[in-house]
Amino acid sequence: MATLDRVQTDHYLIPLPRALEDSMHGTMTVFEVVTARVTDSDGATGVGYTFTCGVNGGAIADILAREMTPMVLGRDPAMIEAIWKDLWWAFHYGGRGGPTALALSALDMALWDLKAVKAGLPLYQLLGGYDPKVPCYAGGIDLDLTPSELVDQTHENIANGHRAIKMKVGRDLLREDVAKIVAMRDAFGPDLPLMVDANMKYTVDAAVRAARAFREFDLVWFEEPIPPEDPAGHRRILTEGGIPIASGENLRSLWEFRTAIEGGVTFPEPDVTNCGGVTPFMKIARLAEAFHLPVTSHGAHDITVHLLAACPNRSYLEAHGFGLDNYVETPLAITEGHAIARDVPGHGVAFDWDKLERVRA
Amino acid sequence: MATLDRVQTDHYLIPLPRALEDSMHGTMTVFEVVTARVTDSDGATGVGYTFTCGVNGGAIADILAREMTPMVLGRDPAMIEAIWKDLWWAFHYGGRGGPTALALSALDMALWDLKAVKAGLPLYQLLGGYDPKVPCYAGGIDLDLTPSELVDQTHENIANGHRAIKMKVGRDLLREDVAKIVAMRDAFGPDLPLMVDANMKYTVDAAVRAARAFREFDLVWFEEPIPPEDPAGHRRILTEGGIPIASGENLRSLWEFRTAIEGGVTFPEPDVTNCGGVTPFMKIARLAEAFHLPVTSHGAHDITVHLLAACPNRSYLEAHGFGLDNYVETPLAITEGHAIARDVPGHGVAFDWDKLERVRA
Ligand SMILES: [Mg+2]
Ligand SMILES: [Mg+2]
Repeated sequence: MATLDRVQTDHYLIPLPRALEDSMHGTMTVFEVVTARVTDSDGATGVGYTFTCGVNGGAIADILAREMTPMVLGRDPAMIEAIWKDLWWAFHYGGRGGPTALALSALDMALWDLKAVKAGLPLYQLLGGYDPKVPCYAGGIDLDLTPSELVDQTHENIANGHRAIKMKVGRDLLREDVAKIVAMRDAFGPDLPLMVDANMKYTVDAAVRAARAFREFDLVWFEEPIPPEDPAGHRRILTEGGIPIASGENLRSLWEFRTAIEGGVTFPEPDVTNCGGVTPFMKIARLAEAFHLPVTSHGAHDITVHLLAACPNRSYLEAHGFGLDNYVETPLAITEGHAIARDVPGHGVAFDWDKLERVRA
Repeated sequence: MATLDRVQTDHYLIPLPRALEDSMHGTMTVFEVVTARVTDSDGATGVGYTFTCGVNGGAIADILAREMTPMVLGRDPAMIEAIWKDLWWAFHYGGRGGPTALALSALDMALWDLKAVKAGLPLYQLLGGYDPKVPCYAGGIDLDLTPSELVDQTHENIANGHRAIKMKVGRDLLREDVAKIVAMRDAFGPDLPLMVDANMKYTVDAAVRAARAFREFDLVWFEEPIPPEDPAGHRRILTEGGIPIASGENLRSLWEFRTAIEGGVTFPEPDVTNCGGVTPFMKIARLAEAFHLPVTSHGAHDITVHLLAACPNRSYLEAHGFGLDNYVETPLAITEGHAIARDVPGHGVAFDWDKLERVRA
């Protein structure tokens, strides 16, 4: 049996080339990345990471370095479910959710990478293997853009290989959102798969009103119309608004997803960097399958491509860069609307640690 | 308008005189306390705190000192709802729940203390004022005790002024739990208000079985039979088990309480140190009232006595010491089963900062 010999935690601040804006997170100028690197007694390594919009990176790094590391050193890294369960309960009080879930996500991801590397398998095959070619979409953070700027940005995205687009909604005037959707349909036709994302801006009534206004544009989904803790509200929007509902980037466990799915979320959208890691992400994907639902994703597309590549019910992978691509040796390529999980052992994401060193927090 | 001039964060480790044990948190030997002290431009001060069972104090202190403090300095401390909402959303991504909720709780408590101090009102009167004399119970962490040890502990609690008792359940053999309840009823009669707390140990089926085994003993409530994220499970236990259900110490927002109450929690039990502070605690108490439910509490009895003293639907205040009483100038007295919210401005909890200095983390 190998044992975990080392967990290295690092905290970086990735500057954004352009400030981003959505309805509820305000203006973002920097992303935080916290990495976890594990080494076992055979000298094998695995890498995981999580990210935030600019707060709590210090807390996440503190939890990883001060608390999780001593709890896992010496353990058998092959027994991820056992480690995950022990950490979940060790941190439950005062820990469930929030930065703890993000710290756990990074560590869990590193353990799965290590396992796949040692098995000599690409992560998506270790997890079951379905299809390495995963449909994806460009997730814009573009609430502030005018209709014509949005169309320009979409031309760029299409030139970069995208064939499906998500745009932000939630401007103070609903008709400004509608005008942007109209501009997109005018420019790219009725068949472009198009999603909208309100980042929890609306009340349930306002979301129903918006869903009805959006319905004629045949959107793939309406994302996060309201805050995540309102299953009955999601049910109303789904049935009264009449368009599919995506949510999940702000749900922090398998169990929160179950309640959300029972409520009315038809496109569960876990984020491997904050739902607790690969372990719960895959359970959420399988839970969705049990409900005959597709599963999509949020964030960390370079890792997540492997997870969705293991799911027969995978829908679109979200691709949005937030600048980390500049610190990775082989950024994920998008071709003809698809990303491909690479056939290398592990998840295959190789950070440029020297370059990251320059943006250490 | 006064402005917030200073927020001081401190992190302490309070040793426990005796290791404590419950079903899911294992053995606890230390509690962490993180304090937030606010000072405004008039030189007035307010004090808040949160606590954990021994992990995440570092993260909480980091969030308070590194991130929340710069966000609130210069703001008008009278506008707590505005500050609370801004912080909630500033930390929502990667923040909702977990250590962020605990950090926010400490800061919010300090702001309410400051407001009450400046108004010259005891906190319970500032919050509405109902009855300063609040029924309370002794919350034992005593899963490991034998029946006779539990009876002995209860004699001590009664000698110390208690008239209602909560004991842990969730031993591997249900009949061992029942034997302890039988011993309590034999020793103290059928009229002692008695609660049991499983700390999320059970499956729903096991909880129904346990509830049925406990039912004949006329318990006030059955606390945390299962993890907090399962509203349908709570509903089954309530209706099939046939005894009242308490839960809340692991719920981290007003909205999680609404889902829990709609599920089947009949004794909502917020903890002011982790539900987000005084602001959401009072909303949860009022929400319970809207559902014709009593409200009880978890933790921080010295502060919480004020909150329940402002609620017509207050049930029992939980009193459990966890050693902080040794660092407070006037620990809350329990007389004839009641605690009394003190008639001093603010919450009136004066820490012995010099003594705390000796247990700084
Ligand atoms: Mg989104
Ligand atoms: Mg309890």
